[in-house]
Amino acid sequence: MKKADIDAFYADRVSLDRQKYIVLEYYLETLIEPREAAAHLCQEMSTAQWSRVGVDEDFRPEFGAKVVELTVLDDQARPSSPYLVSTMGSTAERVARVNVTIWYPYHNFGTKIPNLLTVVCGEGVFHAPNICAIRLVDIDFPESFLADFQGPQFGVAGLRDMLGVYDRPLLFGVIKPNVGLPPEPFAQLGFEAWSGGLDIAKDDEQLGDVDWSSVEERSRRLGALRKRAEELTGEKKIYLCNITDEVDRLLELHDIAVKNGANAVMVNGMTTGFSAVRMLRKHAQVPIVSHFDLMGPFIQLPWFGVKDQVFTKIQRMAGFDVLIYPGFDHRLKTSKEDVLANAKACLQPMGSLKPTLPVPAGSQWAGSLQPLYETLGSVDFGIVPGRAVFGHPQGPRGGAASLRQGWEAVEKGIDLKEYSWTHRELQQAIEMHTS
Amino acid sequence: MKKADIDAFYADRVSLDRQKYIVLEYYLETLIEPREAAAHLCQEMSTAQWSRVGVDEDFRPEFGAKVVELTVLDDQARPSSPYLVSTMGSTAERVARVNVTIWYPYHNFGTKIPNLLTVVCGEGVFHAPNICAIRLVDIDFPESFLADFQGPQFGVAGLRDMLGVYDRPLLFGVIKPNVGLPPEPFAQLGFEAWSGGLDIAKDDEQLGDVDWSSVEERSRRLGALRKRAEELTGEKKIYLCNITDEVDRLLELHDIAVKNGANAVMVNGMTTGFSAVRMLRKHAQVPIVSHFDLMGPFIQLPWFGVKDQVFTKIQRMAGFDVLIYPGFDHRLKTSKEDVLANAKACLQPMGSLKPTLPVPAGSQWAGSLQPLYETLGSVDFGIVPGRAVFGHPQGPRGGAASLRQGWEAVEKGIDLKEYSWTHRELQQAIEMHTS
Repeated sequence: MKKADIDAFYADRVSLDRQKYIVLEYYLETLIEPREAAAHLCQEMSTAQWSRVGVDEDFRPEFGAKVVELTVLDDQARPSSPYLVSTMGSTAERVARVNVTIWYPYHNFGTKIPNLLTVVCGEGVFHAPNICAIRLVDIDFPESFLADFQGPQFGVAGLRDMLGVYDRPLLFGVIKPNVGLPPEPFAQLGFEAWSGGLDIAKDDEQLGDVDWSSVEERSRRLGALRKRAEELTGEKKIYLCNITDEVDRLLELHDIAVKNGANAVMVNGMTTGFSAVRMLRKHAQVPIVSHFDLMGPFIQLPWFGVKDQVFTKIQRMAGFDVLIYPGFDHRLKTSKEDVLANAKACLQPMGSLKPTLPVPAGSQWAGSLQPLYETLGSVDFGIVPGRAVFGHPQGPRGGAASLRQGWEAVEKGIDLKEYSWTHRELQQAIEMHTS
Repeated sequence: MKKADIDAFYADRVSLDRQKYIVLEYYLETLIEPREAAAHLCQEMSTAQWSRVGVDEDFRPEFGAKVVELTVLDDQARPSSPYLVSTMGSTAERVARVNVTIWYPYHNFGTKIPNLLTVVCGEGVFHAPNICAIRLVDIDFPESFLADFQGPQFGVAGLRDMLGVYDRPLLFGVIKPNVGLPPEPFAQLGFEAWSGGLDIAKDDEQLGDVDWSSVEERSRRLGALRKRAEELTGEKKIYLCNITDEVDRLLELHDIAVKNGANAVMVNGMTTGFSAVRMLRKHAQVPIVSHFDLMGPFIQLPWFGVKDQVFTKIQRMAGFDVLIYPGFDHRLKTSKEDVLANAKACLQPMGSLKPTLPVPAGSQWAGSLQPLYETLGSVDFGIVPGRAVFGHPQGPRGGAASLRQGWEAVEKGIDLKEYSWTHRELQQAIEMHTS
């Protein structure tokens, strides 16, 4: 690129109207001079060819993406992926590692999720020339952009009102077994867990509307038993029904589930597209919960893809009341910093959008509550065990009780082990966890 | 896992009914004994907890994923990502590299795209224990599964009938500039390109329905000029309108575009979700074209994510008539083998689904035709240049003419350079390309 063309993709923040731009933070590795690589990135993701042949015009001032900050972290680093370098026809053994902040004029595409994703994670970004690794690390939206999004209908406060639980984390449980188990015994497991103290009995993310367990029958059976559990315990309960399906069935399945007594629905957001969730949000009468399927390839590598918190912000905008996302367990292959950034993205101020409840998931049990509470520094989170509730030696009732006892120990400031001496279900949970 | 539990996730192909299973090929790297790692993967992606506490039952025979083949490529390999190993709390410097073939009983989730993606690319796969890298390399569906999908409405033959072009590749061109250019001059560029010999003038993937270029006005102007270009040239032409938008607007935008004279529509499939395309397919009157935005993070690394051909097969099932995907250019960071596998997945027999036209994209020009034709071994492909048509010194008319001349040279077996001596537009294209 000529120097003048490179310069055209740079700007001083103060010269730009903040309300017209979304802010993008990328990490990238490049084979060429970083300033030019970043300009080329901006060109590819906005005004690739900025004038007609023979016409004196320039769309860059109004429509061009602009680099407002560029930091070279290391200009002689080993590439994170020598393979990607080789696909570019290069044998370079050194690259520059760069953080770049780009302001992007969103009138290029409007306040639409698929078009946003096209621009910030599309061909222009992941196939930009001379860039051999790139990660979208963060995104921020002006108030004017956020104003077009409904966000969560219930949010953290609304969920707490539904349950009448204000002073502790919310206790989800994934009913297990799920794949293969017919609705009648499946519902019975939910009932037992609620009776033992679970707040929210949920379908597994793999369990949809199938002939051996239809949403119609499952929600009817669980809806009825939810009310019975509420009478029995004097507590409010939630049945979270997984309605993930083809997008033209989401509203219908929502209606069936809600009519039958489900009082929250789950959609595996990336698999249906976040736009489908935004559509559902306009129609929904109950909280909507996301599960993180199909996100692994984006989020797991620190030098490539898209950082989880970007999707968290977009999902909050789309209208999810709860996000289940990869938490601290080693199985989840997620850094502690990423899990925390995600929780923050759920709860921090974001235009007038309500907060979304973070549920950092992964092989949890009663003993997960204390470290999560300490790490997150708040009770505004959920845990979502499966086997710890439904594989408990005393069954789901005992498993759910062990969670409540686990929180009681935290609340009272008593060591978990010590508290278990007088609480049999917790004692068994500890045995199960350490065996 | 106990030996008996590992064994429960293994089966001999001949003992299984092929029509009940989809076939998944994974590449994976593991810290533990490969046979156990693969069994654990099957467990996580199907019957995680296969019985209730205190009940003598086992859902694995009917609902369990089954390893039918496992090949250890190297049991002392350096991990592709030491970082991912470290997130798992390990300092292992050696891993086993494994290919594994899994048969998955699809009655677990039904013939639904979001639920399919949840299972084959979900938490169970990308967050499976002791697996520090995984890639879904291929997928195959039984006829019984494919029978529920419409696939392409037009396919390659239908597109050729629309254009009356049977013996050569189809010539797409991305109208440029696009971001910022109002509909009237934008349409004029399309008209000139058609007049010069382009088959299909298309919107850029970044150009949606925006206030400065609505689909309504753009399709009206291009629809009218398309007819004029057809009269002028005596050839049939296509205007491909990008209707990528929130999923609840796709059908409406399709109707507006088609009413106004667009005779094909583009949707950036991954950004809307493939399920939204399947919905559009049921309604569409014109061919549907995909562009590959948001796919980069899945497809670029050979040891991680999802191989492009998996998405190609799913997109063909969803109903795309044309797939624009990363081609041979270095900028696209895609191996030659992956590009070829994709073309094959578009065209090979697949139940009763029509073939999809492969368009391996990337900085193409007249000189791209010969190598593509030779590499693909067929005329059933498209090219999709942008600047080579719309940045040509003689403008889009000259740029489009250069493409036709480029193909004439291939047809006549004349060297491109030699042919350019008598074809000015081609000569200029060569100069532009080599400058």
